[in-house]
Formats: sequence, C-alpha cells, structure tokens
Amino acid sequence: MKVDYTGKLITFEGIDYSGKSVQAKQLFEKLKLQNIPCTAFRDPGATRISEKIRGILLDNDHDEMTKWTELLLYEAARAQMVEESIIPALKKGEIVVCDRFYDSTSAYQGFGRELDLEMVNRANSIGSVGLVPDLTFLIDIDVKSALERRLRVNEKADRLEAQGDAFQERVRKGYLAIAEQEADRFRVINGNDTIENIARDIFKEFMRIM
Amino acid sequence: MKVDYTGKLITFEGIDYSGKSVQAKQLFEKLKLQNIPCTAFRDPGATRISEKIRGILLDNDHDEMTKWTELLLYEAARAQMVEESIIPALKKGEIVVCDRFYDSTSAYQGFGRELDLEMVNRANSIGSVGLVPDLTFLIDIDVKSALERRLRVNEKADRLEAQGDAFQERVRKGYLAIAEQEADRFRVINGNDTIENIARDIFKEFMRIM
Repeated sequence: MKVDYTGKLITFEGIDYSGKSVQAKQLFEKLKLQNIPCTAFRDPGATRISEKIRGILLDNDHDEMTKWTELLLYEAARAQMVEESIIPALKKGEIVVCDRFYDSTSAYQGFGRELDLEMVNRANSIGSVGLVPDLTFLIDIDVKSALERRLRVNEKADRLEAQGDAFQERVRKGYLAIAEQEADRFRVINGNDTIENIARDIFKEFMRIM
Repeated sequence: MKVDYTGKLITFEGIDYSGKSVQAKQLFEKLKLQNIPCTAFRDPGATRISEKIRGILLDNDHDEMTKWTELLLYEAARAQMVEESIIPALKKGEIVVCDRFYDSTSAYQGFGRELDLEMVNRANSIGSVGLVPDLTFLIDIDVKSALERRLRVNEKADRLEAQGDAFQERVRKGYLAIAEQEADRFRVINGNDTIENIARDIFKEFMRIM
C-alpha cells in the first residue's frame, strides 16, 4: 500500500537503555518549541487496542508465549497504530516521532530471537501497512553500558528486557546490520555521548531532511 | 517449517450458524467412543494467551479495530495454539479436531473484509507456523438459512457476526472458492441436512483418510 502524505515519520531505534526514548522526547520538545506541528507515539502503544495488545506482550507471566505469537502481536499493535494514529497525523502534515517501529521487530524478533528474517520482513510489511519511516535514528550503545544504566535505575526488567546479554548483543548487531543495509534512511548515533550533544546532532540531521 | 507428526489435523469451516461447531463436537465424540486418541480445539482459543487475544478480537466495543489488526490478532492467537497445543498433540499421534483454522482467515478477512489475498496467505503461513490440515470439512449453508437459525436462538451477534448479509455472502463464496482450489484437502458438506446425517457422512469421510 502506497500512503500519500505531507508529514514526515521519524523513528528512534536502539537496545533497551540506549537512550532512544529520551532522544525521541527531546526531538519532540524541540519541534514543539519551534511551533512545528508534531506528535509522538511509542510502539507498541498509542491506541487503546494497541495498549491492550502491549499488555499481553509485556506481561512477565506469559512465559509460554511463542516467538511467532510475539512477532504477530507486535505487528497487530503496530497495524492499529499506523492506521488509527500515524497515517492521519502524517496526512495533516505533522512530524510523527515514533519511539520504536518495525526495525525493532527485525532486530528483536529477527536477530534477537533468530526467527527467519524473510518471514519477519513479510510480517513487518503487513504490520506497518506499507509505511516506511522517512528517517530513522539508531541510538547505538554497547550492551555493557546499557546494563550499567539499568542497574543504576534498578528497574524491574519486562519480559523482553529479561532475555540476557547474549540476546541484547544479537539485537545490537542486528540493528547495525539493518542500518548498513538501509543506509539512506538510517543515522547511527553514538549513544555514549551526553543527552544534550546527541539531541543537538539529531535535530541537525532532522533539519537536513526538512 | 515442516512439522513431522503421526496424528491428523481435521478442521471444520463454515459461516456462522452453519453447524460446523456442532459437527466438530460430533466427530470428537465419535472418536472418543471408538477409543481413538483425540483432542478438540477452537480457533481462536485453546491456550491462555490465545483466549486473551480472542477477548480483544471479539469485544463489541472495539469498533475502531482495523482490518489488518484483526487479521494479525487471529494469526497471533493461532500461532500460540499451533505450537503450544496442536503440534504436541499431533506428535503424540492424536487426531486433532479444530473448530476453524486458517481457512477462516482467508474467508473472513480475505474474502469478507476484502483484504489483499496474497498478503492474507502470507500471514496465514506465519500464523499456522507452516502447519496444513490433513482434512477440512466445509459445512456449507446459504446465508438466509444461517440467519434464520440465528434469529431462532436469538443470540447477540459478536463483532464479526454483526457484519451483515453481504459480508456473510462474500465469506460463503470465499469458502467455496478455497474448497475448489484445494479440492484434495476439502470436503464440502451440505449443512441443510440433519445433524445425524451430516455427522455420519463426516465420519465416513474421516475413516477414508485413516
């Protein structure tokens, strides 16, 4: 499906504790300060139905969930968000800032869970209803630094975060591989720099595609 | 994915009020009477996670659910059922009787909702994790008779049942088209006959593939 719109879809990707959510928020705030029409979503989430699906996905009690079920639930939550929230905003000409999108599924389910990448790509094209980000920031951080950040905030890990370092390592490498394959769309950002420096660099890159 | 097993997967398909669930139960009871190891499931359902997904799918309050989200939720519920329940039973050599399977998705979401059939087929191959029924009974009934049956029992329609006659008509025609395309696997049964006659015919057909 080809979607016609005048806005831009900007997605943020990275392993847990890379700082991608902080940076998505920073960009969103900067856009608002400049009076650029914008809206921010997180994937999975954004809509009532997607949030219900998110609840099933991240419930630590769902140990028996299979890899394919997990993949398909992410796609279902995304499809609802795309058609109900993202496409209407893009059609209004807004900048849509999205914390995770289908590259997360490729990285986590494809590379992390080691599902067949072609099947994952097929599922992604259904779940995103054909929508491709205009620009994707990969906030790259090594797994050890990410773990240190987690221990510092001492948060309880959700079902996916609890997969261990080897899993996170595969996800990180997966992200870097995707970014290389789709170099036009991706900007790889060093996540070990300060929040302010990263936010400044991201805004500069964003302005180049406007 | 090729699945090795010694059991058989028998699926029942048809529009709502065709009598397919009654017939799935009849076959299951006959198998038990003959001491043939068997188990029965309904799709979507059978597992704890699939039932939670079913709850989101059939909730009448979810008017805003998009067609693709609906499709992907059915696939997610099915993937969990296949890997958690159906494949283990088939590997034990059991006859698995399933009330609906992926042909329902082709008929309802593909033909009924008029989603792109190639995309639906791709989604089906992910959601069924490559599993194909050994035999599928399509209990065929005209839409008018189905409606009369519904009015007789005076049940409140769920979200999919409430789609109207034109929708049910497309679903029925879709089923017949699929049965023609996959004639080896399908048996089309006249759903206007008596429960006992249909059950006898189905059991006879079932014995032929044993």
